[in-house]
Amino acid sequence: MAQLGLIGLGIMGRPMALNLLAAGHTVHVYARREAALAPFRDHPQAVIHASPAEVARQAEVVFTVVSDTPDVEAVLFGPQGLAEGLRAGATVIDMSTISATATREFASRLAAQGVDMLDAPVSGGEVGAIQGTLSIMVGGRVEVFERVKPWLEILGKNIVHVGEQGAGQVAKACNQVVVAVTIEAVAEALTFAAAHGVDGNRVREALLGGFAGSRILEIHGKRMLSGDYTPGFKTSLHAKDMRIVAAGITEQGLRLPCASLVGERLQALAETSDAESDSSVLFKLLSH
Amino acid sequence: MAQLGLIGLGIMGRPMALNLLAAGHTVHVYARREAALAPFRDHPQAVIHASPAEVARQAEVVFTVVSDTPDVEAVLFGPQGLAEGLRAGATVIDMSTISATATREFASRLAAQGVDMLDAPVSGGEVGAIQGTLSIMVGGRVEVFERVKPWLEILGKNIVHVGEQGAGQVAKACNQVVVAVTIEAVAEALTFAAAHGVDGNRVREALLGGFAGSRILEIHGKRMLSGDYTPGFKTSLHAKDMRIVAAGITEQGLRLPCASLVGERLQALAETSDAESDSSVLFKLLSH
Repeated sequence: MAQLGLIGLGIMGRPMALNLLAAGHTVHVYARREAALAPFRDHPQAVIHASPAEVARQAEVVFTVVSDTPDVEAVLFGPQGLAEGLRAGATVIDMSTISATATREFASRLAAQGVDMLDAPVSGGEVGAIQGTLSIMVGGRVEVFERVKPWLEILGKNIVHVGEQGAGQVAKACNQVVVAVTIEAVAEALTFAAAHGVDGNRVREALLGGFAGSRILEIHGKRMLSGDYTPGFKTSLHAKDMRIVAAGITEQGLRLPCASLVGERLQALAETSDAESDSSVLFKLLSH
Repeated sequence: MAQLGLIGLGIMGRPMALNLLAAGHTVHVYARREAALAPFRDHPQAVIHASPAEVARQAEVVFTVVSDTPDVEAVLFGPQGLAEGLRAGATVIDMSTISATATREFASRLAAQGVDMLDAPVSGGEVGAIQGTLSIMVGGRVEVFERVKPWLEILGKNIVHVGEQGAGQVAKACNQVVVAVTIEAVAEALTFAAAHGVDGNRVREALLGGFAGSRILEIHGKRMLSGDYTPGFKTSLHAKDMRIVAAGITEQGLRLPCASLVGERLQALAETSDAESDSSVLFKLLSH
């Protein structure tokens, strides 16, 4: 059984740590918030530490599951960060959704001290994290990927090595573009139906069997029709991911009109009381 | 066995007529183009007529499968049109994709002579028409729908009564919005991947298992990645359907930004040599 580390015991990180523990591994953990540590206090194979550096001194593989690019940077290279404790030959697997460009820079700084890094952002949400059915999009050296794959298989089902460092983050950005724009597609269609006096529930049913069918039409379409925007995936987080996409669009001089437009709408909603609603609340901007 | 009529023996209408014949019915047909009649000349239960009016005189139910609103109007109310021959108690089932507003007007003109009309546009393309697996979205009186359902079941699988007259056309418009905007979503994501030096095939594979998964990502995504734009569904026809959507948007004073934007792009492509390409050729407008 391996000595693993996991930093970031939030909605996603906590169930992931619990799944690694359930598989029999020792998991060294650290969290800024005292409350996040509660489920680990009495677990015989969980070891709570006072800093990322201390976790790093004990673990051969460390998972990071935090919110955004600056959080990953602080956990890696801040005071008492992982970099202070990581030994040559260790591996960092960053499962946060952050910038691909920053990922490449972090990986190269770690490589200088003999540490491998993979970017391995996920999709599938809290339910996927709890059930161990996440989709995991991995960037980094293929030998490193093959070496750590058994641990990734504890956390997810559809695990794809997409390419070199940063490629996992690029795939995740693509994922968020497709999800956001498809939500907008369904929202616009259901708005069209309502404006023409046609029952959206029947339209959804009629469309589900054909080319317009998708999990977004099925699940997010239902949220729009019922007006129940319990997340799911929060608007504030989807807006954050689309800011990463926007930076990638600018960096490459692209013009991706629907991705940019929907990103801006999510941003606008994230500044309202709908920040905590499921991002299918995009529907409201059309119906009003 | 019933006396049925079918007007419009094109890519969709021809296999539909053949399926009705294969089910044992007599099918009275008319087509403007001589060549379209060839598969019916020697069929013992097919009866070729010189005008829609003649077809109407023989049939209790007449299917119309033509291209656009003016074509349906001409077949119904033009010289030697169906209206001249239809008896009280007959039913017209229009499976073309046309304007919902025009549909309501046509239905009310037919009702004045005791003829029922259903709008029953389809999705599923030529393959669905051949295999009898079309999705059929039906608008009109529910008693009429129940009466003709056995014939619809010869032509399709997912058959939904969406609502009153025009509701089938509204659902089809919604279908075309979702398909067009989801194609754009996939095209923008794959453009983002390529610009960041990441293999779109791996991204597609990584995304297929999760919330970003759809038949569009699977099938149209593959067309974009291979550059093989054999239709599928032609850009010129998708552009025509999105013009119907645009008219519906204007009529109701809506603002559906992605549907309008993608509609305009399809229109632009329909005026180039890509008019006959699959509408996933939207990808080209981003990659160039």
